[in-house]
Amino acid sequence: MKMAIPCSPLFYMEKPTIPIPSPPSSSSASAVLTQDDLKRIAAYRAVEYVESGMVLGLGTGSTAAYAIERIGELLKQGKLKDIVGIPTSKKTEKQASAWDIPLSDLATHPVLDLAIDGADEVDPKLNLIKGRGGSLLREKMIEGACKKFIVIVDETKMVENLGESGMAVPVEVVPFGWAFTAKRLQSLFEEVGCEAKLRRCAKSGEPFLTDNSNYIVDLFFKGPIGDLEAASDSMLRLTGVIEHGLFLDMATSVIIASSFGVTMKNK
Amino acid sequence: MKMAIPCSPLFYMEKPTIPIPSPPSSSSASAVLTQDDLKRIAAYRAVEYVESGMVLGLGTGSTAAYAIERIGELLKQGKLKDIVGIPTSKKTEKQASAWDIPLSDLATHPVLDLAIDGADEVDPKLNLIKGRGGSLLREKMIEGACKKFIVIVDETKMVENLGESGMAVPVEVVPFGWAFTAKRLQSLFEEVGCEAKLRRCAKSGEPFLTDNSNYIVDLFFKGPIGDLEAASDSMLRLTGVIEHGLFLDMATSVIIASSFGVTMKNK
Repeated sequence: MKMAIPCSPLFYMEKPTIPIPSPPSSSSASAVLTQDDLKRIAAYRAVEYVESGMVLGLGTGSTAAYAIERIGELLKQGKLKDIVGIPTSKKTEKQASAWDIPLSDLATHPVLDLAIDGADEVDPKLNLIKGRGGSLLREKMIEGACKKFIVIVDETKMVENLGESGMAVPVEVVPFGWAFTAKRLQSLFEEVGCEAKLRRCAKSGEPFLTDNSNYIVDLFFKGPIGDLEAASDSMLRLTGVIEHGLFLDMATSVIIASSFGVTMKNK
Repeated sequence: MKMAIPCSPLFYMEKPTIPIPSPPSSSSASAVLTQDDLKRIAAYRAVEYVESGMVLGLGTGSTAAYAIERIGELLKQGKLKDIVGIPTSKKTEKQASAWDIPLSDLATHPVLDLAIDGADEVDPKLNLIKGRGGSLLREKMIEGACKKFIVIVDETKMVENLGESGMAVPVEVVPFGWAFTAKRLQSLFEEVGCEAKLRRCAKSGEPFLTDNSNYIVDLFFKGPIGDLEAASDSMLRLTGVIEHGLFLDMATSVIIASSFGVTMKNK
């Protein structure tokens, strides 16, 4: 996938300082970067902030996977030591174990030094939409317990208003009464325009199950969500709603990789 | 158990108009009523508000069980017809089925006419604590969808301030990270003084599982909770909290049975 849209000029722009792997089809250093390349660039840059002895929140998804890979490599090379990781999903737990990253949990480490994770959308205030991969609850719990939370994205994830892309804001709900809960969620945003859909497995058609054995209702907004804090509270007040994918005032930094370079925006 | 504490004089007092079953140990009509007698009296009074054709929310617990029993009897006698019940727990579902009460769900009947259920505590504004039996989530979802919600209690449940009895305010939480969530819940109410304890099964010592396969953290307050709406929102904002047992501004009436008679308080 070609990347052409530059990051917002509001962001501080710097040249990439880390090696950019060439895509397989290219032998030239100036080749067009794929989306995967950009994800890796953002992830590797974030891992520069990891120090030996840190307790880390390990994100979930294709971008976060590069960060885990990088942490694993640095541990192997002895460049990082005494790292403890707290995975935000069962999938991440497996991946981190495969890289021999020592793992722990929130009961043992209720305060984390740093979390690194991707996001589905990032707005200019560093509010996020997360959870299109389905791990929003564990991500929010763990990343909310971190002193620093670095979000790593390629430039396609930067938006002016969360939800305006027409892509989903995921909501984790209790399976009991899910259809009723979905209707109430949709009604909450009647004025804005919103469609609530139960997420299903593509193959089986069965409801998608989160790591916590709950369902996901995806909200597709037809306009700007408006007051995000109010939207958050109104969703949380619905009985049957467990958590939603609006991550407000949580990210401390965002690293954005584009074909023009890497930018970092801090809170 | 002897009942001697009168209801608050604020409540309208009326004489019992329904038959009071004599406790087994007594042959006198003026015998001291047991707590069970009072629960039955309150429940039977509430069922006087049930009309044929209604969609009913069926509560959970020892007091609500008497209401289900009474509805079942009236259906059997042909005094009630075309009732549809929506049970608030698996236990209630079984009980209602045993009484041949036709059952449905919120997806089919998103608006209910009337719910009848017990409560653990009731304050003068008809705010409730519910869920010591563990069914708070389904109860709140279903009773929140009712046009009328009659709470049935014996007089021991009436309190000036919710939680001041020192008994639990139950919170349904996601099993993942429960110890972390319990600590955060306790910290929320640090100023008031609060102890958070995971509910366990008495026999096995294993965590108690709700009908939704979640855990219950019981909050034991050492003083008045204070602003109930604020307490509610602060709990719901904690990732990992699914629902809590504060039922605020939901009950439309409370029927209180005491040894002095039955009182009804409306919103």
